[in-house]
Amino acid sequence: MTMDSVANSVQLPPLDNPNERAAIGAELQVVLVDLIDLSLIGKQLHWSVIGAAAHGVHLFLDELVDQWRELADVVAERAVTLGFIPDGRSSMVATGSRVEPVVVQSVADHAVVWELGRRVAAVAERVRARLVSVGGADLVTQDVLIRVVEMLEKQQWLLRVQLGEKA
Amino acid sequence: MTMDSVANSVQLPPLDNPNERAAIGAELQVVLVDLIDLSLIGKQLHWSVIGAAAHGVHLFLDELVDQWRELADVVAERAVTLGFIPDGRSSMVATGSRVEPVVVQSVADHAVVWELGRRVAAVAERVRARLVSVGGADLVTQDVLIRVVEMLEKQQWLLRVQLGEKA
Amino acid sequence: MTMDSVANSVQLPPLDNPNERAAIGAELQVVLVDLIDLSLIGKQLHWSVIGAAAHGVHLFLDELVDQWRELADVVAERAVTLGFIPDGRSSMVATGSRVEPVVVQSVADHAVVWELGRRVAAVAERVRARLVSVGGADLVTQDVLIRVVEMLEKQQWLLRVQLGEKA
Amino acid sequence: MTMDSVANSVQLPPLDNPNERAAIGAELQVVLVDLIDLSLIGKQLHWSVIGAAAHGVHLFLDELVDQWRELADVVAERAVTLGFIPDGRSSMVATGSRVEPVVVQSVADHAVVWELGRRVAAVAERVRARLVSVGGADLVTQDVLIRVVEMLEKQQWLLRVQLGEKA
Amino acid sequence: MTMDSVANSVQLPPLDNPNERAAIGAELQVVLVDLIDLSLIGKQLHWSVIGAAAHGVHLFLDELVDQWRELADVVAERAVTLGFIPDGRSSMVATGSRVEPVVVQSVADHAVVWELGRRVAAVAERVRARLVSVGGADLVTQDVLIRVVEMLEKQQWLLRVQLGEKA
Amino acid sequence: MTMDSVANSVQLPPLDNPNERAAIGAELQVVLVDLIDLSLIGKQLHWSVIGAAAHGVHLFLDELVDQWRELADVVAERAVTLGFIPDGRSSMVATGSRVEPVVVQSVADHAVVWELGRRVAAVAERVRARLVSVGGADLVTQDVLIRVVEMLEKQQWLLRVQLGEKA
Amino acid sequence: MTMDSVANSVQLPPLDNPNERAAIGAELQVVLVDLIDLSLIGKQLHWSVIGAAAHGVHLFLDELVDQWRELADVVAERAVTLGFIPDGRSSMVATGSRVEPVVVQSVADHAVVWELGRRVAAVAERVRARLVSVGGADLVTQDVLIRVVEMLEKQQWLLRVQLGEKA
Amino acid sequence: MTMDSVANSVQLPPLDNPNERAAIGAELQVVLVDLIDLSLIGKQLHWSVIGAAAHGVHLFLDELVDQWRELADVVAERAVTLGFIPDGRSSMVATGSRVEPVVVQSVADHAVVWELGRRVAAVAERVRARLVSVGGADLVTQDVLIRVVEMLEKQQWLLRVQLGEKA
Amino acid sequence: MTMDSVANSVQLPPLDNPNERAAIGAELQVVLVDLIDLSLIGKQLHWSVIGAAAHGVHLFLDELVDQWRELADVVAERAVTLGFIPDGRSSMVATGSRVEPVVVQSVADHAVVWELGRRVAAVAERVRARLVSVGGADLVTQDVLIRVVEMLEKQQWLLRVQLGEKA
Amino acid sequence: MTMDSVANSVQLPPLDNPNERAAIGAELQVVLVDLIDLSLIGKQLHWSVIGAAAHGVHLFLDELVDQWRELADVVAERAVTLGFIPDGRSSMVATGSRVEPVVVQSVADHAVVWELGRRVAAVAERVRARLVSVGGADLVTQDVLIRVVEMLEKQQWLLRVQLGEKA
Amino acid sequence: MTMDSVANSVQLPPLDNPNERAAIGAELQVVLVDLIDLSLIGKQLHWSVIGAAAHGVHLFLDELVDQWRELADVVAERAVTLGFIPDGRSSMVATGSRVEPVVVQSVADHAVVWELGRRVAAVAERVRARLVSVGGADLVTQDVLIRVVEMLEKQQWLLRVQLGEKA
Amino acid sequence: MTMDSVANSVQLPPLDNPNERAAIGAELQVVLVDLIDLSLIGKQLHWSVIGAAAHGVHLFLDELVDQWRELADVVAERAVTLGFIPDGRSSMVATGSRVEPVVVQSVADHAVVWELGRRVAAVAERVRARLVSVGGADLVTQDVLIRVVEMLEKQQWLLRVQLGEKA
Repeated sequence: MTMDSVANSVQLPPLDNPNERAAIGAELQVVLVDLIDLSLIGKQLHWSVIGAAAHGVHLFLDELVDQWRELADVVAERAVTLGFIPDGRSSMVATGSRVEPVVVQSVADHAVVWELGRRVAAVAERVRARLVSVGGADLVTQDVLIRVVEMLEKQQWLLRVQLGEKA
Repeated sequence: MTMDSVANSVQLPPLDNPNERAAIGAELQVVLVDLIDLSLIGKQLHWSVIGAAAHGVHLFLDELVDQWRELADVVAERAVTLGFIPDGRSSMVATGSRVEPVVVQSVADHAVVWELGRRVAAVAERVRARLVSVGGADLVTQDVLIRVVEMLEKQQWLLRVQLGEKA
Repeated sequence: MTMDSVANSVQLPPLDNPNERAAIGAELQVVLVDLIDLSLIGKQLHWSVIGAAAHGVHLFLDELVDQWRELADVVAERAVTLGFIPDGRSSMVATGSRVEPVVVQSVADHAVVWELGRRVAAVAERVRARLVSVGGADLVTQDVLIRVVEMLEKQQWLLRVQLGEKA
Repeated sequence: MTMDSVANSVQLPPLDNPNERAAIGAELQVVLVDLIDLSLIGKQLHWSVIGAAAHGVHLFLDELVDQWRELADVVAERAVTLGFIPDGRSSMVATGSRVEPVVVQSVADHAVVWELGRRVAAVAERVRARLVSVGGADLVTQDVLIRVVEMLEKQQWLLRVQLGEKA
Repeated sequence: MTMDSVANSVQLPPLDNPNERAAIGAELQVVLVDLIDLSLIGKQLHWSVIGAAAHGVHLFLDELVDQWRELADVVAERAVTLGFIPDGRSSMVATGSRVEPVVVQSVADHAVVWELGRRVAAVAERVRARLVSVGGADLVTQDVLIRVVEMLEKQQWLLRVQLGEKA
Repeated sequence: MTMDSVANSVQLPPLDNPNERAAIGAELQVVLVDLIDLSLIGKQLHWSVIGAAAHGVHLFLDELVDQWRELADVVAERAVTLGFIPDGRSSMVATGSRVEPVVVQSVADHAVVWELGRRVAAVAERVRARLVSVGGADLVTQDVLIRVVEMLEKQQWLLRVQLGEKA
Repeated sequence: MTMDSVANSVQLPPLDNPNERAAIGAELQVVLVDLIDLSLIGKQLHWSVIGAAAHGVHLFLDELVDQWRELADVVAERAVTLGFIPDGRSSMVATGSRVEPVVVQSVADHAVVWELGRRVAAVAERVRARLVSVGGADLVTQDVLIRVVEMLEKQQWLLRVQLGEKA
Repeated sequence: MTMDSVANSVQLPPLDNPNERAAIGAELQVVLVDLIDLSLIGKQLHWSVIGAAAHGVHLFLDELVDQWRELADVVAERAVTLGFIPDGRSSMVATGSRVEPVVVQSVADHAVVWELGRRVAAVAERVRARLVSVGGADLVTQDVLIRVVEMLEKQQWLLRVQLGEKA
Repeated sequence: MTMDSVANSVQLPPLDNPNERAAIGAELQVVLVDLIDLSLIGKQLHWSVIGAAAHGVHLFLDELVDQWRELADVVAERAVTLGFIPDGRSSMVATGSRVEPVVVQSVADHAVVWELGRRVAAVAERVRARLVSVGGADLVTQDVLIRVVEMLEKQQWLLRVQLGEKA
Repeated sequence: MTMDSVANSVQLPPLDNPNERAAIGAELQVVLVDLIDLSLIGKQLHWSVIGAAAHGVHLFLDELVDQWRELADVVAERAVTLGFIPDGRSSMVATGSRVEPVVVQSVADHAVVWELGRRVAAVAERVRARLVSVGGADLVTQDVLIRVVEMLEKQQWLLRVQLGEKA
Repeated sequence: MTMDSVANSVQLPPLDNPNERAAIGAELQVVLVDLIDLSLIGKQLHWSVIGAAAHGVHLFLDELVDQWRELADVVAERAVTLGFIPDGRSSMVATGSRVEPVVVQSVADHAVVWELGRRVAAVAERVRARLVSVGGADLVTQDVLIRVVEMLEKQQWLLRVQLGEKA
Repeated sequence: MTMDSVANSVQLPPLDNPNERAAIGAELQVVLVDLIDLSLIGKQLHWSVIGAAAHGVHLFLDELVDQWRELADVVAERAVTLGFIPDGRSSMVATGSRVEPVVVQSVADHAVVWELGRRVAAVAERVRARLVSVGGADLVTQDVLIRVVEMLEKQQWLLRVQLGEKA
């Protein structure tokens, strides 16, 4: 084929089996929605936190939000790399997210830590539960999700110790 | 009052009139929701754009998303500075946003530009319409919103010219 | 006039009316004195704060001090731009500042936050009260003072929430 | 409207009234021409200055030139944002600029300061005179021009004091 | 053994079984050759691309070339870490590369994207096919190759969408 | 001569022959005017470009403008180093520039590339034609102009390939 | 549960089975001790190396020490993330480290390379031997340890080649 | 003592003898007040300087002000390290400073240099006179004050030479 | 002596008297061991701290650890400069450190501050007690140790105030 | 010609005479091939070097490779600027390079230096031999090649002195 | 020749004719000595300058000194690249420099400018006089010296204009 | 004294006794000359070093040269601060330096290390011998010289260990 004549043929995403692409895409879709929701909740608490430790928590929340946004982008781009267009719209996040909602009010600093810790742990646990099955279909996506879990579990620890529980 | 004894009294936000605080807060709330929705839509299109100009649009969208996120933070922090806790949760964005939703599918580069241009223009126009009345109550919030409009209108221009329309 | 011969004429500051220059200068003078005093009080508390949250407050105070110094410089340079030489000497700050003095002793972290919050709020309120009348004479100086108020009110919020009061 | 079908309709610039757009555009056009001319004059003097203080003035001129170029870009982009294409060509600058020309010869450092000070003051004064009427039509453009005046008046002060006149 | 007397013994690379070292080395060798060839082809197209989108593609190609060079270095250093000296000479790349050659002529921007996309996909696919068997012998090398595949597949997506195909 | 007594004598620029200084100065003068005009035209098109590729061209133009401004400064400073004060005023640029003017209107992206390419090529060609004769009088100025030509010809290539012509 | 009332319940680390947490924690503990000891030995040799190549080795040792400190931190934080508090105290390092001690004396540059190479290889080999069994319990910890092995084996290669042995 | 039970005992500052602590604290107090006053005077002159050299002096003053602020912070923190809370409030600076006040008016550049030079020299001389006696009680504080003197004396030289006196 | 023939003679470290070298070396040895132990304890607490202030303390500990590592390196390099090879091995730190050990368990944030404060104060006090005698033998080493004491005493203050004791 | 109508005419590269363009292009082609081959050989030795000085040589080789890659890009872009598309494909490098190949095996550090020195010298000599004739046709290309020779000859010196030969 | 056996042959510097190498080396030697002497004189004046403009001259001198040091290094390394070891020792600079010495005393700012301007001009003129003959033997060295002249002549201009002479 | 009238009085350098100023100045003068000579010798060897370790030594010499230049500047500025103008001219360095000269020829890497080590040690020893007597007159100058000795002795160690002698 000469380089000047671009054929009608199309270029296919990785993974030969379209079903596998869709299955992996669906796995990534649910992780994406949870991560976006975490980032919105993190901002909500960033604006609402009060108490003696409020300023430190306010700053820490922005670091977490940056990490969730970055992870969400990596997850979504992995999905679309596999030919699956993920849905990160507000309507999908509002209905599809499995993260427990927060209330709109001032929240005490310790409550922010407690509530976030629970939510981050829940998301991490859900992703961890899928690692082995995902790895069976696509080692690359598994590696992406291992990084997601590693980051979330570290955040969970950094939050948990602020509750005075055994590190 | 000595510095050791912190009185029971509370510290009040700016603006003497609580009604004014609530009114300004409500103005900022609707702007916030639109800006968050723009940032989610921007990411959605960042993942979905196709076509000969897709790569440039993909990168440009991340610049816009960063600007919307930054403006949303400024707007929300102005609200809470006035004692009004804004609602930036996914449920509120999904129901309260006045930004027209996009569909989940591959979108041609020129369509991305066209659709975004319309949405940015609509948000800018809505904020602009409120500038004078807001300024009557609070010049500082007016200044914040002027910066929002200036940024959105510049984005609108940068998008509009890509449509080949007269700059 | 050739470029080699510099005439005896003088170059006048902006604003045609010398009375207006003096009036705006006087407005800026009182803001300047309060901002310098805030920066000295901020440093005093930076050295005196004690308590479990002392280290965070110690660092936060340096950020505030930098912002007050920067604002003071902008305010003073606006005054001199208008032909009014402001007075930022220690004697003037000691006698002219309307900021309530602090005592020289160890101060508990929560008391630092409480005391600073009150003082910042008082300065912000005094500047805000003059915005409209200043704007009538000079929109540029008004814009400078709007930025002063915006910064002070945001600081006031960041301090107020540390008291556990509703954000 | 689906996202794939881009309609024939066009996207309009901000401001509903086309006459207002043209009027604001014309205001920005005259400011643009003066700012470009200041930047060319600044460079001309950068190459021509002589005298004991020549090196300091040579460097200071480059800072001013950078500021004028930046302001010119902001002003021009605001015009085109409103649908008015400004004219920044050499022919327009040569004929439309209201800045008094300089001569092509070595210029003593004090004369550079004197001559520039007069020209900057004249431009600032002309823009200031239009602030209120512009604000009536478009608060965003007013805000842009307030920043132009603030910067020019500060430059005027920095130049004026070098003449030994009362600051 | 005292620290002054260096024995005649040698230090062996990781992996006890020399056959396994050679096998893994051979796997890395073929990946290395393909990556070097991609980097040479990328530069060739960087110099040859023409068309309306040529400048963007020209810059994008340099980003890809940097990534291929970096991956090639990681792959080669992993091989030599295992005691296998890889061959990255021009003669080996010319004869051993499985990447389809390009022609020396001006190449239209869309053709560059199409041709590169096919070649990147082919290399990614070949590496992916070896991941499981490599992991059986050496998990560390498997991890290196997973990163190679992840990067190549993301590049493939970024190229594919420029063809207007479904993302 | 002691260092305290500065003699009446003057310090002369390089090149013994005043005629040579003037001749080289005149060569540099025409290059300067063309480069300044290119920078003004580049900005004009930066504000006026429309079309699907407008955003990329908009950004690329700012890179070119920076390069032309930098080259103009080097050329002018070389002239004044030789004792020849160049004329970079708007009136001289408007009348002396040999660069074909552009019109004030929206310009399609491909037309921007085409029009700029022609103008850059023309300037480069005029400078190149003078290299040998300049070198006969002053090798340093020749070296300056060689760098000007090298930069302009590279720009010309980067523009030309966007027209789809053979690179 | 409302956000204001923090329940008595505790937040548990990842991995449902406490025995698995302890087992993985014990694996990480031994790696941690070896890495800390490597960092102390590296500093000891940094101060003791002599010979013609001493300066290069002195600088290289600081790079290695930085890498060992960073790896130790990652390993320890993974342990505590799983609810296992690792022991990195000097007493534990002195008694628990399996790294062969060095003597306190001047050490020739080649001997430093030889001795360090042996120790790094031994640590890498011990970690590698546990990769598969660790992966059975926790893929995230396995990924952490794979990165440890990859780094140590690369260091081992960089040291081994300095001995003149076949790379 | 277990780590969980924090005893009632207190932690004392360095220096066994409380009288010595107070004495050293008093030494640092007077230096602090002079340094803060220098920083306020420096800013006052930064706004008031006029004359041909005004711009250079204006910039130089900001460097000096930064150095005085930094030294003041080091001095105050050394005092509080020794258990002595220093007084840096405006009232104390206004009454306790031994630095001769300046007048509020435009000040010629050479007068600024002359007046500052005298004041810096006087402060340096007062601190120098106490070095030996301070060193007898606390070598660390002496080292701090030596750095203060070194900086002030260098500033004094940089100012003195601008008066045309023998360097 | 020609530069090509390197004599058999050796180059001796500073200080003529070998006994003095050994004595100063011994002084530095004990400081080194304490500083290394502080850095290991700091890391141990970095991983173990719990409580509402845990995150701030966690970050602060890393700053302290960096300072201790840097001081230890300066102290050790001063020793070896004097021809005394210090012992910084884990066995020496475990047996020679005079710093009270910590326990391996979760430690409350206030306890971390309390325990560290005591240990830092003890080390500072021991080094301070040797300053004068060291200075009698070597002013350079004294200067190194003064910097060690200054840093440790400042850390002690920053920790002490967190206990709520008078600063 | 109006800016909207792009003519059918084409834009030609610099140099009026097509034969000259081809001749200069051919000169650049042979330099390009040698530089690419040097960069591949440099990487090959980067992976293969052993011996006491291996680490320093390993790092130095990466600096050289970066320089060769940069020079190759400049050379190739100069060729295409003149309308000559250079051939930098692996097949052309393998067959056209005049650089003596290296063997695939561990190479002692001194041998790396010796072998590279010879090859760099040979390339530099070949380019130098063409400088005058190239300059006759195109001074800009000559300037590019002078920079190539200057860099290569400096590398040759840095390598030669490592052989212990007279600098 | 295999890569393991380094032959007895030597590697020769560029330029086939040893006489040419020596001749070019001698040209570079005299430039080197003058440049080193300029750098020492520049520092001497940096310490000695007095007068109203002293501070600006003091800073400007450090920029010039940095440029002379950089040029000296380039010149010396070009010499040694050609196999000629230059002599940059103090004894050679003291006896071989053709730069007129300065006196050791306070020097007025204008005298510094005057005296330096004369010396820089003299060095530039001497190098310029050799450009053509050097170029006949070695175009690369000529290019190095052209850069030396360009830099020195620009410095001469920057100094000359400070004398108030026509630029 | 009003600020406008600059008196005829002069400002004197620190230290009341002019004899003390001269004595300290003389001490600094001899240190300055040695440091400048070290920096020239360092550059000479930077150009002359040959041998297997030549490249590392070449780079290390530039670090040393930077340190000597920096120390020389500090020493000279301390002298002039005390009213003593030091002499750093080439003639003074050539005649006054007590540093043993080097020969102009290629120097083997180990000989460079040996020769430099001796010279640095000699300079350090001479400065050290004067520390106590200088401190009697001026503690600030003593502190400057202590820093000189500390740096030189550390360099001496870094050189000495390269000779293979006991560190």
